[in-house]
Amino acid sequence: MLLVMHKEATDEQIDSVMSTVTENGYTPHPIPGGERLSIGILNNKGPVDGSKFLALKGVKEAIPVTRPYKLVSREFKGEDTVITVSGVNIGNGGPTLIAGPCAIESEAQALTIAERVQESGAHIFRGGAFKPRTSPYSFQGLGLEGLEILSRVREKTGMPVVTEVLDYENFDMVEQYADIVQIGTRNMQNFSLLRRAGLCKKPILLKRGFAATIDEWLMAAEYILAEGNAQVVLCERGVRTFVNHSRNTLDLSAVPVVKRESHLPIIVDPSHAAGRRDQVIPLSRAAVAVEADGLMVEVHNAPEKALSDGPQSLYPEQFHLLCRQVQAIHGNLHENGFGGDAVSA
Amino acid sequence: MLLVMHKEATDEQIDSVMSTVTENGYTPHPIPGGERLSIGILNNKGPVDGSKFLALKGVKEAIPVTRPYKLVSREFKGEDTVITVSGVNIGNGGPTLIAGPCAIESEAQALTIAERVQESGAHIFRGGAFKPRTSPYSFQGLGLEGLEILSRVREKTGMPVVTEVLDYENFDMVEQYADIVQIGTRNMQNFSLLRRAGLCKKPILLKRGFAATIDEWLMAAEYILAEGNAQVVLCERGVRTFVNHSRNTLDLSAVPVVKRESHLPIIVDPSHAAGRRDQVIPLSRAAVAVEADGLMVEVHNAPEKALSDGPQSLYPEQFHLLCRQVQAIHGNLHENGFGGDAVSA
Amino acid sequence: MLLVMHKEATDEQIDSVMSTVTENGYTPHPIPGGERLSIGILNNKGPVDGSKFLALKGVKEAIPVTRPYKLVSREFKGEDTVITVSGVNIGNGGPTLIAGPCAIESEAQALTIAERVQESGAHIFRGGAFKPRTSPYSFQGLGLEGLEILSRVREKTGMPVVTEVLDYENFDMVEQYADIVQIGTRNMQNFSLLRRAGLCKKPILLKRGFAATIDEWLMAAEYILAEGNAQVVLCERGVRTFVNHSRNTLDLSAVPVVKRESHLPIIVDPSHAAGRRDQVIPLSRAAVAVEADGLMVEVHNAPEKALSDGPQSLYPEQFHLLCRQVQAIHGNLHENGFGGDAVSA
Amino acid sequence: MLLVMHKEATDEQIDSVMSTVTENGYTPHPIPGGERLSIGILNNKGPVDGSKFLALKGVKEAIPVTRPYKLVSREFKGEDTVITVSGVNIGNGGPTLIAGPCAIESEAQALTIAERVQESGAHIFRGGAFKPRTSPYSFQGLGLEGLEILSRVREKTGMPVVTEVLDYENFDMVEQYADIVQIGTRNMQNFSLLRRAGLCKKPILLKRGFAATIDEWLMAAEYILAEGNAQVVLCERGVRTFVNHSRNTLDLSAVPVVKRESHLPIIVDPSHAAGRRDQVIPLSRAAVAVEADGLMVEVHNAPEKALSDGPQSLYPEQFHLLCRQVQAIHGNLHENGFGGDAVSA
Repeated sequence: MLLVMHKEATDEQIDSVMSTVTENGYTPHPIPGGERLSIGILNNKGPVDGSKFLALKGVKEAIPVTRPYKLVSREFKGEDTVITVSGVNIGNGGPTLIAGPCAIESEAQALTIAERVQESGAHIFRGGAFKPRTSPYSFQGLGLEGLEILSRVREKTGMPVVTEVLDYENFDMVEQYADIVQIGTRNMQNFSLLRRAGLCKKPILLKRGFAATIDEWLMAAEYILAEGNAQVVLCERGVRTFVNHSRNTLDLSAVPVVKRESHLPIIVDPSHAAGRRDQVIPLSRAAVAVEADGLMVEVHNAPEKALSDGPQSLYPEQFHLLCRQVQAIHGNLHENGFGGDAVSA
Repeated sequence: MLLVMHKEATDEQIDSVMSTVTENGYTPHPIPGGERLSIGILNNKGPVDGSKFLALKGVKEAIPVTRPYKLVSREFKGEDTVITVSGVNIGNGGPTLIAGPCAIESEAQALTIAERVQESGAHIFRGGAFKPRTSPYSFQGLGLEGLEILSRVREKTGMPVVTEVLDYENFDMVEQYADIVQIGTRNMQNFSLLRRAGLCKKPILLKRGFAATIDEWLMAAEYILAEGNAQVVLCERGVRTFVNHSRNTLDLSAVPVVKRESHLPIIVDPSHAAGRRDQVIPLSRAAVAVEADGLMVEVHNAPEKALSDGPQSLYPEQFHLLCRQVQAIHGNLHENGFGGDAVSA
Repeated sequence: MLLVMHKEATDEQIDSVMSTVTENGYTPHPIPGGERLSIGILNNKGPVDGSKFLALKGVKEAIPVTRPYKLVSREFKGEDTVITVSGVNIGNGGPTLIAGPCAIESEAQALTIAERVQESGAHIFRGGAFKPRTSPYSFQGLGLEGLEILSRVREKTGMPVVTEVLDYENFDMVEQYADIVQIGTRNMQNFSLLRRAGLCKKPILLKRGFAATIDEWLMAAEYILAEGNAQVVLCERGVRTFVNHSRNTLDLSAVPVVKRESHLPIIVDPSHAAGRRDQVIPLSRAAVAVEADGLMVEVHNAPEKALSDGPQSLYPEQFHLLCRQVQAIHGNLHENGFGGDAVSA
Repeated sequence: MLLVMHKEATDEQIDSVMSTVTENGYTPHPIPGGERLSIGILNNKGPVDGSKFLALKGVKEAIPVTRPYKLVSREFKGEDTVITVSGVNIGNGGPTLIAGPCAIESEAQALTIAERVQESGAHIFRGGAFKPRTSPYSFQGLGLEGLEILSRVREKTGMPVVTEVLDYENFDMVEQYADIVQIGTRNMQNFSLLRRAGLCKKPILLKRGFAATIDEWLMAAEYILAEGNAQVVLCERGVRTFVNHSRNTLDLSAVPVVKRESHLPIIVDPSHAAGRRDQVIPLSRAAVAVEADGLMVEVHNAPEKALSDGPQSLYPEQFHLLCRQVQAIHGNLHENGFGGDAVSA
């Protein structure tokens, strides 16, 4: 249930409504809007009877929320959420381009790649300092040293940086260095990590679990919003199926479905979906064609020597081509006023 | 193994090579090219020693074929196959647009829809006369009456028509009326039907089985080519996964993979993948963005009254919007010379 | 809707009810029972109003059927169907053991294996004469010669034989030689083949499609029953998943679900599920432990030389061990009166 | 590479070998055996040349390890690992029966269920104090209070208890109260949690991720062993597939495969696989028939009132029936000496 307050509602009226919600055994959640405040009613175990709240002073409307997720749903918030980090927008129309190596290997490597992808049009730099690896004996990332390198990349290029946090223990450290904190596919239902992300002051990039339904994914985002952090970017990265010509199967219909269900921005990672360089450019074009809000792409200056995920990393010149192609598709769609069909159709 | 003959090879030399292949226990398969003939060596159970054939007069090269499929592979035939039906090309660059209702319900219905989709830009009309239905008690299609209606649609609109054949028994009848004969997802490994299709003089539209790997799909096409019919259009239509927000999961990476592996054209059916109208337009844009050679889309003038698959059928005005959008994307890609990256990357 | 007639209902009353059903636009389907006749009402497009039939003379009860499948459902027929072929029962409690090679290769091979499996306890011999092969260049079976060998195996051993039919065209021939006609996993939704099987006078072994839901599978069986052949044995053989340590994933919960939903017997094929010899014995024990009505197992006297599916074929001595183990499990369950929990729980 | 030392090898020789391994850039891992010590060589990036180690004094054999997992593999340790907790064995022939409610709701509930399942034959009590829930608004478990109730159940019944740990932060607390610490399906690749489990002095029950391959699962266990905790019990609990008649698809072939690949015990959780009460007993029988070392089953005295997972919880009298059935199957298999075929076949 969402209680929409009148524009002229007083603070006193708002407080009174909040108290009444609490007295009825629910949790009130204020959601500031452009012109008016709404108050979400959470923790109900069944349908909420709106009539008792409609009678309160200052309440304009009581809108039932039919989904298991609340704060992330379009029912709670109709307008698209736009996330801004160091002047870069995500969710504001264009495809925001995030690029960089799978893992930070050295300052030279990181800077070389950062400069190349920036020239081509990347807005945000990505690079792993802590790497989730299937084997305990594989390269686990440079850790703190990797985070420091990311800082220097930001200083030299001006690009904000996104990097993955693997666990609660290192969250403070990662939060300090990153502009956007990434939660990976294997941690999508690591609920204590999600709650910690909800206390973070920086935006969270939440990857879809490789075998998660959209409901489960949005509920994972709900954990973050429920703790107070409304800056969440969703990232589709392929799901596990019987198909064997790509590492995962990119589920592009997730983009229009998420856009219909939620106000949060959604981007696409074609690199982890494909697992092979030669599918990355076509899938990037497709992602922009379904109106994803951005792309996250792995690029390496010497993929054959990469410490992880070399086979799926683009060469810098391929990323350059990718940028030109997706910008052309995006520009064209918007010139022709084709935006928004996913939501309205 | 593929034996490439010299441009100047004589008929006598060719016959002699064919005989030698046969004498070695293999099956020779002549493949005419623009300037020269090639001879495929089939039915080998292991690697073929090319040296014995290289010594024969007229043989220029012996190229090993590393794939289980032969005639459909790019190794056998490097250039794209273009299929032409009543002046409409498939595989020649552009997105060929196929549209129409799931099932032919009446002449009025078929003609109404045909005229609407043609106005919007459709090149080929689709409509089922024989419908594969999960339940024996569901509407099974109008049969011969449906085929006759398709004929009249062709007469009145000039558009070629594609319709599904369900079985060997009705193949002659369907072949007589259809311009392109469709083999559906459930019949992708109906091998006697595939062999019959190999004897057909008309192009075959071969849908991917909803749980088939690309290797299995190309092997199914190989059955058709091995019988002598080289006019096969492949159609990706989604695969069955755990995902529940769409009926199937559209596997768009299949497009670049098939284009790399095979010279056959490949189109995409977003309607059966999605199973829901509101995903069809975004997925159509994505399909064109990965350079599918065409689309096959379900359109109905009154989807809510359709005898089958109403929820996934577009309204005619939605199809009109779809055409404008995919033409814009396609035009843009080709203006900028972006074609062919899937193959060359 | 199922109309249950009184024990004493006259032929005249029955005819009258049948006519009334027809007049109401439905199809009546008489189902003989031990003591009384029932009449199924098919081809309804929504709920049927039973009151108009209850008023007819001779009608005792009108039972709504809630499932999309009718004739195969437990609602239509409460007691288990038992299928008897040459004195061997399927569905009558015990695990009926079907064994033999993937493909019939020669009379010597077939007889050698048949004698070995019969000694160990097999009741029915299996062997493919027509083989569905992914590649057109693979061994396709001996055809008619294979069927003749199967006849001689039956003559010499007294065991009934089961073999696969691939297509409508060869159905008459296969039907003439086989005691049970098998429809394979790739043909589970080959509807014209299913309809032909419905006209067959011999039992049909219907394998589950490797990506079919149970509803789709039971609907496929419904096609056969709807044409008049009520002798259908279902066979679970694994489904396609992301799992890579076995060829398919054996779905053993299908057994209790099918037993609850349908009166038809269900057996299990562990060989095609596993695709590897070393999983076949444990999975066979598991299948008997979930109360499958039988097993179908591939056995070859020289698996390493088998023309198809060698790696999953048991050695005869392994099949011997398998028989002893599953008989022990089965005997034990029934001694302790544990049968039937799947249905009643 | 595994270096097997002579029985008579001296401490000095062992130290010297360890040093040499380190000097070569690898990590030595001593593995005590009954009669002799072995030294595993970890952190190699390619094949290790054994000859240089064979020449060292005290080294008897150098065995290459072909799998990506080392310490968990049968190559490293041939004999089955048996885990003993409060006198209960897991992996010693078995089936060890673990039962209890999904979540601890109150002391009365826990004790009532514990007494009932113990009477029926359960060896270990299960109950969740911290619950991983898809929704942040669902009941999350009693936390510390739940752990204290578990302690009292242990005191009163003498049964050891297993409960899930959700995160690093609460590990100390859970470790203090639990006899076996469970890591759930969503945390199977929560690597910092796995590393913490490796430092735990108590056995770890590691559930398979619902979309994990066996390789990934064994690598997760390797994380725990690599930190020093060799007491790991694996638990198969179903994988996510397209199948819709059960919540997950129980993958029973995982049991023989894991037993072949690893020395660790493996049990089966049929409750979470099925998601429905009526499949639990048949699947339990099947799990014992494939020689799982135990079962973990949800039982509730009033499933219809359970705070979580009620529909899959057995009634106590159903668990009683389950125990009798699986004991009969197990006893029978072992009387007949059928054990061990999975490994030896």
